Amino acid sequence: MKLASLKSGGRDGLLVVVSRDLVTCQAVPKIARTLQCALDNWDEVAPQLEKIYARLNAGSADKAESFIEEECHSPLPRAYQWCDGSAYINHVELVRKARNAEVPESFYSDPLMYQGGSDSFVGPCDPIAVLDEAWGVDLEAEVAVVTGDVPMGATVEEAAGAIRLVMLVNDVSLRNLIPNELAKGFGFYQSKPASAFSPVAVTPDELGDAWKDSKLHLPLQVTLNDEPFGRPNAGEDMTFSFAQLVAHAAKTRELGAGSIVGSGTVSNKQGSLHGSSIANGGVGYCCLAEVRMYETIEGGKPATPYLAYGDTVRIEMVDESGASIFGAIDQEVVRYHRRTT
Amino acid sequence: MKLASLKSGGRDGLLVVVSRDLVTCQAVPKIARTLQCALDNWDEVAPQLEKIYARLNAGSADKAESFIEEECHSPLPRAYQWCDGSAYINHVELVRKARNAEVPESFYSDPLMYQGGSDSFVGPCDPIAVLDEAWGVDLEAEVAVVTGDVPMGATVEEAAGAIRLVMLVNDVSLRNLIPNELAKGFGFYQSKPASAFSPVAVTPDELGDAWKDSKLHLPLQVTLNDEPFGRPNAGEDMTFSFAQLVAHAAKTRELGAGSIVGSGTVSNKQGSLHGSSIANGGVGYCCLAEVRMYETIEGGKPATPYLAYGDTVRIEMVDESGASIFGAIDQEVVRYHRRTT
Repeated sequence: MKLASLKSGGRDGLLVVVSRDLVTCQAVPKIARTLQCALDNWDEVAPQLEKIYARLNAGSADKAESFIEEECHSPLPRAYQWCDGSAYINHVELVRKARNAEVPESFYSDPLMYQGGSDSFVGPCDPIAVLDEAWGVDLEAEVAVVTGDVPMGATVEEAAGAIRLVMLVNDVSLRNLIPNELAKGFGFYQSKPASAFSPVAVTPDELGDAWKDSKLHLPLQVTLNDEPFGRPNAGEDMTFSFAQLVAHAAKTRELGAGSIVGSGTVSNKQGSLHGSSIANGGVGYCCLAEVRMYETIEGGKPATPYLAYGDTVRIEMVDESGASIFGAIDQEVVRYHRRTT
Repeated sequence: MKLASLKSGGRDGLLVVVSRDLVTCQAVPKIARTLQCALDNWDEVAPQLEKIYARLNAGSADKAESFIEEECHSPLPRAYQWCDGSAYINHVELVRKARNAEVPESFYSDPLMYQGGSDSFVGPCDPIAVLDEAWGVDLEAEVAVVTGDVPMGATVEEAAGAIRLVMLVNDVSLRNLIPNELAKGFGFYQSKPASAFSPVAVTPDELGDAWKDSKLHLPLQVTLNDEPFGRPNAGEDMTFSFAQLVAHAAKTRELGAGSIVGSGTVSNKQGSLHGSSIANGGVGYCCLAEVRMYETIEGGKPATPYLAYGDTVRIEMVDESGASIFGAIDQEVVRYHRRTT
């Protein structure tokens, strides 16, 4: 089943069930007004939503409306938790190699994970708004899951069963703020502005064979200023599955329903800078930092700039027939202006 | 005005207005069912809540009920953001001194802040539940504020004006998990289990002269196993005011209404181990780590153990007449057991 939240519903959006082909949708206020509400009561609510989904796909829904991605907020416009792993160790290996450092052995068994801000996500087609280009704006294309309630100390198997939804995310980073912030020792805060998620979140069963061992085995398509930039397979080189990431998150505390757990920047192992870009036959990248690390490793310094005002980023994933699964994250970098109220 | 959330309201609690003396309360479902709902619509809702508050205090409320702290969840049982500063640099100085390291000069102008988990707080009288005593359970008694919406790049003055509520918090830490986790570079995650907040959150005006320059100038009373453990003044030695902490948090992103910003462990400058305990005439401590740092600095190693199963922690603040302002956080350390559903 596919779910989205329309901006018309206010701070938490209006939950709609979306047809598989992303053409129609239906609000379900009598079942659950918001996605958080559905997640809070999932066992009771999900079967009812599935019925609506079946009718939408059959063209027999009586209240179907056109589904418009631009009218969507992120599926959870604000969430009680957003934590992000670094499951693609290749990315970490490149970071370290670029500064001539070793990857600690423990990184292959103990996931890196940071607690992100979840109070003010932006919509999938909203701009990446920053006050200063010099902060070093970078995209990070990732996959993320939404959990139900998870008990403290959940096993990996239990964690796998607690995954309710899958979606895409652009976990924007302010690269030039990261070194100082991490040097302080308490992790990211200012260097991680608002993330955006794909218009649609889907249940794992919707992904068919592509969802296996709690990994999503399909290429993640990233387009930068209308040029292909990345298409690494999100199921490859993922050192930690989503179930492992969720279990890591639940080691010392319960996770509340609606917790979002991210994969970290998707990254496939490739040989070198020359062969890694899509133009040269590689699978490309899911963040600019990765190109810059290849450049640093091979040329001593980065050459590709971070994002500038006016740059556009599109993140999408298609099924084997070429149809978009989650809709597209489609953002432009702009200067932030305060909302007028 | 004083506000609380009763557990009877479910995941988000039932908002009640509480009388100044914490004796009576009244639910206000027609005005706002939950505290988050009130914060989302504060300008419209607050004046209506103030009227109920005035009636409660005058003894003329028609629907007043007894207020029972044990029936409370944290004022926001789950929140969209919980970030915690380290505003009392004395604490950081002791940490560094205990390992013979200098405090970077930037720490006096650029606050340390970490993003905490906010999806599953526990109630003020709920146990501190852990799976393993060996994790090194420590209390951290702090003050926290709840904000309204804050625009990106808000000035310190604007941030001060966005502070809606003040409360107390026990930001439990798992000390023995911290070194490994911070060494990974991404900040705290597993080492910060669920926090608990005081039963009652109050508007800044309720604090009178004690709320000055966005600091709360009253002693924070910490009791450990029924013995006085700390009473440092939360208004002293606070290097960064709450307004500065909120402005720091909003530098690169908007803060959503209901964001909780903490002060970090309250800590006053004291001379040495001998003179710092309450028994020896000092103001004591708000976490066990601080005693242990004094012990390490003076004796080479810590002597005081972390919390064990059965230990109790009480955190409270009283006004000049001796009346409790926020009610008490009153927790016992226990082994975690899964909820039966």
